[in-house]
Amino acid sequence: MTKIVIDTKGSDKGASVVIKGAAKALEKHPGLSVLLVGDKELIEQECSALNVPVDRVEILDAPDEITNYDSPAEALFNKRNSSMLKALSALSERDDLVGMISSGNTGVLLAGSMRYLSGKVRVRPVLAAVLPAQSGGFTCLVDTGATIDCNSDMLHHFAKLGSDFMKSMYCIERPKVGLLSNGAEESKGNKLVKETYPILAAYESLNFVGNIEGNNALSGDCDVLVCDGFAGNQVLKVTEGTATRIITDIMKYAYKTQSDEIKKLAMHLMSIYDISSLGGGIILGVEKTVIKTRGNSGEDAVVNTAEMLLNMAENKAVFDKEKYKNNI
Amino acid sequence: MTKIVIDTKGSDKGASVVIKGAAKALEKHPGLSVLLVGDKELIEQECSALNVPVDRVEILDAPDEITNYDSPAEALFNKRNSSMLKALSALSERDDLVGMISSGNTGVLLAGSMRYLSGKVRVRPVLAAVLPAQSGGFTCLVDTGATIDCNSDMLHHFAKLGSDFMKSMYCIERPKVGLLSNGAEESKGNKLVKETYPILAAYESLNFVGNIEGNNALSGDCDVLVCDGFAGNQVLKVTEGTATRIITDIMKYAYKTQSDEIKKLAMHLMSIYDISSLGGGIILGVEKTVIKTRGNSGEDAVVNTAEMLLNMAENKAVFDKEKYKNNI
Repeated sequence: MTKIVIDTKGSDKGASVVIKGAAKALEKHPGLSVLLVGDKELIEQECSALNVPVDRVEILDAPDEITNYDSPAEALFNKRNSSMLKALSALSERDDLVGMISSGNTGVLLAGSMRYLSGKVRVRPVLAAVLPAQSGGFTCLVDTGATIDCNSDMLHHFAKLGSDFMKSMYCIERPKVGLLSNGAEESKGNKLVKETYPILAAYESLNFVGNIEGNNALSGDCDVLVCDGFAGNQVLKVTEGTATRIITDIMKYAYKTQSDEIKKLAMHLMSIYDISSLGGGIILGVEKTVIKTRGNSGEDAVVNTAEMLLNMAENKAVFDKEKYKNNI
Repeated sequence: MTKIVIDTKGSDKGASVVIKGAAKALEKHPGLSVLLVGDKELIEQECSALNVPVDRVEILDAPDEITNYDSPAEALFNKRNSSMLKALSALSERDDLVGMISSGNTGVLLAGSMRYLSGKVRVRPVLAAVLPAQSGGFTCLVDTGATIDCNSDMLHHFAKLGSDFMKSMYCIERPKVGLLSNGAEESKGNKLVKETYPILAAYESLNFVGNIEGNNALSGDCDVLVCDGFAGNQVLKVTEGTATRIITDIMKYAYKTQSDEIKKLAMHLMSIYDISSLGGGIILGVEKTVIKTRGNSGEDAVVNTAEMLLNMAENKAVFDKEKYKNNI
């Protein structure tokens, strides 16, 4: 049995949607059990209404909630009874929990992960997104917004964390690491990219494949795409915006032409370019896996994320922090 | 009669494609005439084969060519007989020419535009892209790669140039100016964005609408989207990469299902998200309009670009450089 902890609060759609997602995941995966953190009464009601198997659900009451207006420093100090921090604390203390899902405030989740899951060796936590690549595999984009202003040491750190993650998550022996730039040639890039290029190229443990342009960000030319959090946020959101726009166009066209075939195509595209799962983030650099789903994501995002955690537990993805000692 | 100059060299697809594009534009627009710069013999041959009206074509022989390996400084010094620099020189000297099209080396084209078209008041030239917005209008993205590392004064300069361009090009009275950021709130952004926000907000001549996230870059929430050249390049290329990928998926699906309806849809989308016209750039900040089409763009890109120049000439878009005096 693989047990994960789910913060039921912090979703724009309310706790019920998160609980429904958890119920769906439990139904789909008999080897999964969950610790649901939040409003105990509500969770009990929902679980009973949904006929969730009681032996695979544990509930931890947390009256308080982190909002999007809370600053990380204040929240860590004042909101220890919030569902997010109680969930992180449980994840940190209990050996039976392998990972966590939350759709709450990203800044507090990052700071909280660092606070509760750093152990003895502190490293800078990174927010990665794992996105479907055109080639059929996945691309790990690091960083997507945890650190907005970066230096070349940080980008080097992101490259190592991303590479190790893809190794353990997808059993890729030597993940190809690319550096997001405005041109493929070594001479291209902003100051940060130009400083980072030789560092990544010289580090033999990385399989560095050079600069990658935005149009190839998710082509599959690299398994790990390294960039500062500002640029990563752009890659993520521009991809989302463009995909949403084109799919909306197709839906309108289907409506205009009353074509069932085109409606079917639009549904097919929506399942591939699942907007609600884009933009979720995996916190790398901490002792257990914490995955942030988007604030507006629905039940399916909880199911998908639970599946990622199951997958990681199966692959026994272990994060060896000693290697990152100098990257605090 | 509106006369434009076309650099026939520098295209990845060869001069013949550019000349064919010019012939198409001439056929479509009886009020257009062109000065074609490049290999005289080849231009004459092509024009005669295409039955181009001789009275609307002038040819300027230029034996030399700027390649993508030329550095701006060297090219300006050593390649004055290149088609690009001869075209720029003609544009600068002759009153009958209103604008120019080139698909050659962007760096040399920018430096050359500054050298030949700056006049007495030098301002930093900017590479803008005008992209179709979801709302139906257009968004001017500045900068898309002319200046990769920027400071807040430069972004302020881009905002003013972009705003003036949209005013004169599309007769928008007070173009909405947005600042590309990683969140809509004023507090979001990298160091550069945070420094730029109050400057744009305080400048009353601009209709500043605040931060714009990547997923809304081309939603139409703003008419001018301001960012550094690195970020602008990402917005442009990630949009292109995502659109190309989805359209390719649809084509594959059409092939698999043998559906004519879906083939028609794919063609329809290709015409909206015309990849070959994305990524072209308009050089702002110089005395006459220079438009860079992509190296791999085809005949239609030449036609579209010629239409933009005709449109600008009709609107009598005049660039008042005195306003930019301090933004050298």
